[in-house]
Amino acid sequence: MNIRLYNARILTMEENKDIFMGEIWVKDERIIYAGNGKDTEGVYEKQGIPCMLWDKEIDCGGNLLMPGFKNAHTHSGMTLLRSYADDLPLNEWLNNQIFPVEAKMNGEDIYELTKLAVLEYLTSGITSVFDMYLTPETIARAFDEMGMRAVQVGAVNHFSQSPEMIEELYLKLNSGSPLQSFMLGFHAEYTCSRELLMKISDLAHKYKAPVFTHLAETKSEVEGCMERYNMTPMAFLNSIGMFDYGGGGYHCVHMTKDDIAIMKEKGLFAVSNPGSNTKLASGIAPITDFLKAGVPVALGTDGPASNNCLDMFREMFLVTGLAKLREEDAGAVDALEVLKMATVNGAHAMGLKDADILAEGKLADIIMIDLNQPNMQPINNIAKNLVYSGSKQNVKMTMINGKILYQNGVFLIEQKIADIYKKANEIIDKYR
Amino acid sequence: MNIRLYNARILTMEENKDIFMGEIWVKDERIIYAGNGKDTEGVYEKQGIPCMLWDKEIDCGGNLLMPGFKNAHTHSGMTLLRSYADDLPLNEWLNNQIFPVEAKMNGEDIYELTKLAVLEYLTSGITSVFDMYLTPETIARAFDEMGMRAVQVGAVNHFSQSPEMIEELYLKLNSGSPLQSFMLGFHAEYTCSRELLMKISDLAHKYKAPVFTHLAETKSEVEGCMERYNMTPMAFLNSIGMFDYGGGGYHCVHMTKDDIAIMKEKGLFAVSNPGSNTKLASGIAPITDFLKAGVPVALGTDGPASNNCLDMFREMFLVTGLAKLREEDAGAVDALEVLKMATVNGAHAMGLKDADILAEGKLADIIMIDLNQPNMQPINNIAKNLVYSGSKQNVKMTMINGKILYQNGVFLIEQKIADIYKKANEIIDKYR
Repeated sequence: MNIRLYNARILTMEENKDIFMGEIWVKDERIIYAGNGKDTEGVYEKQGIPCMLWDKEIDCGGNLLMPGFKNAHTHSGMTLLRSYADDLPLNEWLNNQIFPVEAKMNGEDIYELTKLAVLEYLTSGITSVFDMYLTPETIARAFDEMGMRAVQVGAVNHFSQSPEMIEELYLKLNSGSPLQSFMLGFHAEYTCSRELLMKISDLAHKYKAPVFTHLAETKSEVEGCMERYNMTPMAFLNSIGMFDYGGGGYHCVHMTKDDIAIMKEKGLFAVSNPGSNTKLASGIAPITDFLKAGVPVALGTDGPASNNCLDMFREMFLVTGLAKLREEDAGAVDALEVLKMATVNGAHAMGLKDADILAEGKLADIIMIDLNQPNMQPINNIAKNLVYSGSKQNVKMTMINGKILYQNGVFLIEQKIADIYKKANEIIDKYR
Repeated sequence: MNIRLYNARILTMEENKDIFMGEIWVKDERIIYAGNGKDTEGVYEKQGIPCMLWDKEIDCGGNLLMPGFKNAHTHSGMTLLRSYADDLPLNEWLNNQIFPVEAKMNGEDIYELTKLAVLEYLTSGITSVFDMYLTPETIARAFDEMGMRAVQVGAVNHFSQSPEMIEELYLKLNSGSPLQSFMLGFHAEYTCSRELLMKISDLAHKYKAPVFTHLAETKSEVEGCMERYNMTPMAFLNSIGMFDYGGGGYHCVHMTKDDIAIMKEKGLFAVSNPGSNTKLASGIAPITDFLKAGVPVALGTDGPASNNCLDMFREMFLVTGLAKLREEDAGAVDALEVLKMATVNGAHAMGLKDADILAEGKLADIIMIDLNQPNMQPINNIAKNLVYSGSKQNVKMTMINGKILYQNGVFLIEQKIADIYKKANEIIDKYR
């Protein structure tokens, strides 16, 4: 499909580039032009064609085009457990409510539930996700059928998955569909033995690959690690070479200065999940400390059982709002920095170097933001509007890999939406 | 207009009443029936009619009907300053950015800007607002023309409005349009002299009327009052009889146990504004302390310059989320309690005793929530879904006083929406 998006405001998310009026040309899965529409000479020649026959030309009506949001930490299949158990202390929630149902879920259930999550991602302008869950192969199938770009990550722990299994997945899922990929990872320090962790570290060295994991989400997790190894989780994992080829941590709430220094030294990403950390009372991550230290911060929703929604607008408001509360400084964490977390940094954390900005040669993962809604008016400052007053309601179009999957409130996918809802309700009824 | 809403899930917000399938009948501005549709005998007789000719019958498709949200603290005209100045320390924001523009705004500007706010209220399912701003008469005209139910409150301080002026408004705006009313109030202790405050207290006694004001929003406000009177703002205002006929405070972030005891004794409402308190780094209000003490909590967005959006879903998530963080307890402030804050308590704070629940004889301020969206699936628990994963995107219909003003993303009002946006942009361009 060749699509021309014109009469748009464009926020490319390139450094120091202001929003401008212009157009974006998409050929198949890539952007072949992003500019003011007056400097298009040579574009066709580069593509080896005399001119372009557009399949679609879309008048954006002055609305905003920007890179899709990158949800850099989620467990999509947990849609099943959205609002299944809330307003409970963390341990009771996890051990008495979440784990027992998860133990019953099979790969086909998770395939269906992942599709439900994708629908929500599309409404929130999310064009790729960093997903950790139980059955990566059925999950990859769901994402692929829905047209969703996804990077999955290993979830090794002492009761599911194994180093051997994630090595196999690493080789298999990185050589299949171009929309799907897989990274090394494990659930968390506190759910793995030292031996198990050593094997993951060996894999990281074997493949010279980054590793991701839940890191310092709660106080008790850090305290437990101190008891076991007399080190923080960050220091301990670093001591066994886990991050010698990069990677990063999800949550990163309870971090010492030394922990942050390690992240900087190893080039790690701090993936913040402020919605989940708020709802589960885990604490407020030290975002300004990461920024000061030069540690890139990305944003994720976490799974829908702990958030409970998959909405990057919530995460964007919270990551800066909670930093302001923590620092008692309304000037903490500027809106533009937040947009960078939600787009560029997320893409880089997930290894999607071509899905970060809107520019020639980049992947066409593009969203259109409706500025003709009351929450975006007047147009004083579009970046601030996005972060402080934006909502899912403003997502007018979500395009992934050059395909428009959601437009004006309608899902442009083959499957019947009502069937996806029906399946999810049938599955929870089965396990309730 | 006589409207029948059928095939709906209904959350009446009556105490201890579960959601049920049924229908609601609206005759002009009131509900004449809310039930399962099988016990309708006698409804027509009560209305003195043999049967009903419906102007409209709406199949709700299993979606949820509930009372509209009550935005119990806002400054609607501040839409002008949305994203005009953000990420700044509070004093710099207020003194160097907000006040200079506000000084230039006139009544006609505020009339236009209030209309813009109403559009946003409708998208968020807000059916009445408790508004404090500069020119109550032009504001009442804007609300009335838009069909919005509004309770305005005096904003007396040492640079605008006066006790004489708000007495006049109190008499005038409470005897005009049934959609409009006015309550006694002043901006804040720190912007009024003792003499000015005494005059407001006299008015409260003269009319046996409740009084509302900004209260203990910031630490420095409380410290200043301690210096001036050796009392907290709550204790000082109480000492001069300000709350002898009830009322309440907006924000109520920095409250002592004694302050909360006064609120309970005087039957005051704590109107919480978690979005604004977060963005301006003011702090986290002691919501669980209010609840334990039996002080009713209502919710407001505050104005769009400090929030920056007028979205009750944001406030609902934040009021419980921040309480969870403050108490380090994921079980703090149950979702149902939050829904009560956003509906029943707000209505009672604003003196709208007939706009609290969905029942026979109550005002027809009703919203429809779209459950056929991915963020509401599966249907494990609708109340939790509303608070934890709900968004403006789920507002399928907003009805005020029996009139549908917003439905399926379309505003059903006479004025052109584009003109309202245009006006707001022209006004800010004039003052920039």
